[in-house]
Amino acid sequence: MHDYLEQSFSVKFEYRVHFTSGLFDTTNTLLEDFFKERQIEGMQQKILFVLDEGVAQSHPGLVDKINAYFDHFKTVKLAENIVLVPGGEKVKNHSYYNEFLINTVNDFGIDRHSYLAAIGGGSVLDMAGLSAAVAHRGVKHIRIPTTVLSQNDSGVGVKNGVNFKNKKNFMGTFAPPVAVFNDDQFLTTLTDRDWRSGMSEAVKVALIKDAEFFNWLELHAFDLSKRDLPTMNYLIKRCAELHLQHIRSGDPFETGSARPLDFGHWSAHKLEQLTNFEVMHGEAVAMGIALDSVYSGLKGDISADEVRRIINLLINLGFDITHPMMEVHEENSPLLLGLDEFREHLGGRLTITLLTAIGKGKEVNEMDWHLVKKASEQLKALNLEKA
Amino acid sequence: MHDYLEQSFSVKFEYRVHFTSGLFDTTNTLLEDFFKERQIEGMQQKILFVLDEGVAQSHPGLVDKINAYFDHFKTVKLAENIVLVPGGEKVKNHSYYNEFLINTVNDFGIDRHSYLAAIGGGSVLDMAGLSAAVAHRGVKHIRIPTTVLSQNDSGVGVKNGVNFKNKKNFMGTFAPPVAVFNDDQFLTTLTDRDWRSGMSEAVKVALIKDAEFFNWLELHAFDLSKRDLPTMNYLIKRCAELHLQHIRSGDPFETGSARPLDFGHWSAHKLEQLTNFEVMHGEAVAMGIALDSVYSGLKGDISADEVRRIINLLINLGFDITHPMMEVHEENSPLLLGLDEFREHLGGRLTITLLTAIGKGKEVNEMDWHLVKKASEQLKALNLEKA
Ligand SMILES: NC(=O)c1ccc[n+]([C@@H]2O[C@H](COP(=O)([O-])OP(=O)(O)OC[C@H]3O[C@@H](n4cnc5c(N)ncnc54)[C@H](O)[C@@H]3O)[C@@H](O)[C@H]2O)c1
Ligand SMILES: NC(=O)c1ccc[n+]([C@@H]2O[C@H](COP(=O)([O-])OP(=O)(O)OC[C@H]3O[C@@H](n4cnc5c(N)ncnc54)[C@H](O)[C@@H]3O)[C@@H](O)[C@H]2O)c1
Ligand SMILES: [Zn+2]
Ligand SMILES: [Zn+2]
Repeated sequence: MHDYLEQSFSVKFEYRVHFTSGLFDTTNTLLEDFFKERQIEGMQQKILFVLDEGVAQSHPGLVDKINAYFDHFKTVKLAENIVLVPGGEKVKNHSYYNEFLINTVNDFGIDRHSYLAAIGGGSVLDMAGLSAAVAHRGVKHIRIPTTVLSQNDSGVGVKNGVNFKNKKNFMGTFAPPVAVFNDDQFLTTLTDRDWRSGMSEAVKVALIKDAEFFNWLELHAFDLSKRDLPTMNYLIKRCAELHLQHIRSGDPFETGSARPLDFGHWSAHKLEQLTNFEVMHGEAVAMGIALDSVYSGLKGDISADEVRRIINLLINLGFDITHPMMEVHEENSPLLLGLDEFREHLGGRLTITLLTAIGKGKEVNEMDWHLVKKASEQLKALNLEKA
Repeated sequence: MHDYLEQSFSVKFEYRVHFTSGLFDTTNTLLEDFFKERQIEGMQQKILFVLDEGVAQSHPGLVDKINAYFDHFKTVKLAENIVLVPGGEKVKNHSYYNEFLINTVNDFGIDRHSYLAAIGGGSVLDMAGLSAAVAHRGVKHIRIPTTVLSQNDSGVGVKNGVNFKNKKNFMGTFAPPVAVFNDDQFLTTLTDRDWRSGMSEAVKVALIKDAEFFNWLELHAFDLSKRDLPTMNYLIKRCAELHLQHIRSGDPFETGSARPLDFGHWSAHKLEQLTNFEVMHGEAVAMGIALDSVYSGLKGDISADEVRRIINLLINLGFDITHPMMEVHEENSPLLLGLDEFREHLGGRLTITLLTAIGKGKEVNEMDWHLVKKASEQLKALNLEKA
């Protein structure tokens, strides 16, 4: 008796990524309109906010503003408290914050028809997204990203996560939000490093998917480095759009092994770790892009001129293109361990994205360490030249 | 500038629920065939087993058998250890077990292409399912249910969960398994209470969806109560099939408010709690079915004859049809609080399933407590008659 029943169904996920300025001004009805549209008869929906302390410090009036907003518009009821959590990786390193948030969802009676909204950088969004995904098997999650990186990449996608025993994002789920609200006013208070580092993901996605966007980046590198907000808004929107397209046209919940969006990331992840996260993710990605671009050039997949354009763009945006820890001298140089770790991360089979043109990626299953060494030496030389 | 990007995609979920006997006999290639079909070139997939201690005790040779199976068939590599966890609700009450399992997934290097298989009752499956869903944002999860309830209901569906601060299933996700293997040999060692209590969900699903199955249950009540295994196999298969159909044709991840499969459950949940879980879930559901069926009769939605058939079936299967804590004397009798809690559970709007015929449910948004009182009195009288 070997009998079976077959189960098969599809689940549809839909959400919008909104772009606005001054989300909590009572003259701005975007959020209220969103709630009105999703009101459920006979139910008082609630909303609980979790807020990145770094954002709260840079925007001292924000808590009052949120309170005033929900005093003014009453479709959704604001939970008694706005929950503050530390910004940055710390909030993903300690399970305390996740448990605390789930506790708060319980205390304030946030149910599956109510909202958990997170305001902050990618770290706070990643942590809060996991809490929202598991409390009650999922409450409605709204993301309000406040950094360049989270507005153009991490905050618009479908993943959340926290770290576990030093393993980055070891725990998490695939859980699309019900909406994302990108408010450019948050960007004005970013440090220069945070402003800049989020742009490397835009360079990355342009390189593997959109030559025209790359040209645009070259043309606007100066304005971007000078913190021109309208220019940054365009970068964020186009980058977010490319990410959204990638998710929906590919394998949204990543059941396969390919990770084209991880272009430049095998060495970046390793560099972050080797420098004890002194080098930020976006900064490391810029160097990883530089390395894999020069490597692509050495393999003859892209021209010397293309390599030069990529390196120049990174420099013009204000990025360093290499770091002492990015140097490869021998087969067991620390950086090269990043290849093994990346293989392990993918589940046993190495898949690395390289370039065949500006705007076009390709997948390979191995890297020649001699060429990696050569690429790292060339970058070191270029870097000295630049200085 | 109120601009937005629209995201929309569907994710397909597919899995089979297999029925077999002696899954780990090396003469049975079902599991090995499954692994073979899903083998990924260039990867050594692994499998980690988590095993219900109650099952291990009743099946002393099981651990050796699993080891021998993976010694014989080598497509997938068995993790160094088989992890034992307590059976029953305890494993869902302490976050320790969930963390321990996630730790073990980490220690044994189970990645997204490897398997976490759980063998046990619904409690162990619910806990392990959550660990599998969040480790690495989801490793491949195999369920091997060992009780009637888990083989016909909880183990074939898409939910997992653990308790949090006494709130049942407060944390969990919707996460379909990659496969379910129902092995009838496990059922032989169940206590009579566990054997019986899993059948109430079959009565429930027959009542709201399948009159013919109800007739079959009436005809086979004696064999079922006498623990005839082939008859139980049919019950499980039909009940599982109805659950699978319900999931795929409805709202698999329960974004709406209706819960037709919760027929009889508002009072059952409350009774479990009022008796400190002395009354088992399935036993409580049988009483809840009795209550809401008599109620449906009092409302004139089903005939007195239909009510009688339902009560008789429950009695013939060996269920108690009421309990002192199911009695309702006044508007604030403890049982009636179950209505408020059920409303809260649904997110603010009460939706109760009642019957309009054997095999057909309907939804109502309120219950008349006078009629609930009357129904509970009638059941008490019937119960005395029976004794
Ligand atoms: N989920 C995904 O798909 C995904 C993708 C990429 C990256 N990530 C994750 O995102 C995280 C990094 O996020 P990030 O780069 O946004 O940085 P971050 O969240 O770590 O924040 C950096 C610092 O900026 C502060 N900050 C945030 N917004 C501010 C503002 N508007 N003004 C002033 N200070 C502000 C924070 O308090 C923090 O101190 C990493 O943990 C990374 O793993 C996730
Ligand atoms: N996820 C869902 O969709 C869903 C649906 C319904 C119920 N559930 C959950 O299922 C749980 C109840 O599961 P259950 O009824 O299977 O009981 P259980 O898992 O609580 O197990 C009851 C006892 O039986 C033992 N046992 C299990 N299999 C055995 C076997 N073959 N032989 C001997 N002993 C065995 C266990 O060790 C335990 O002591 C509850 O926590 C409930 O919330 C989940
Ligand atoms: Zn990145
Ligand atoms: Zn039930």
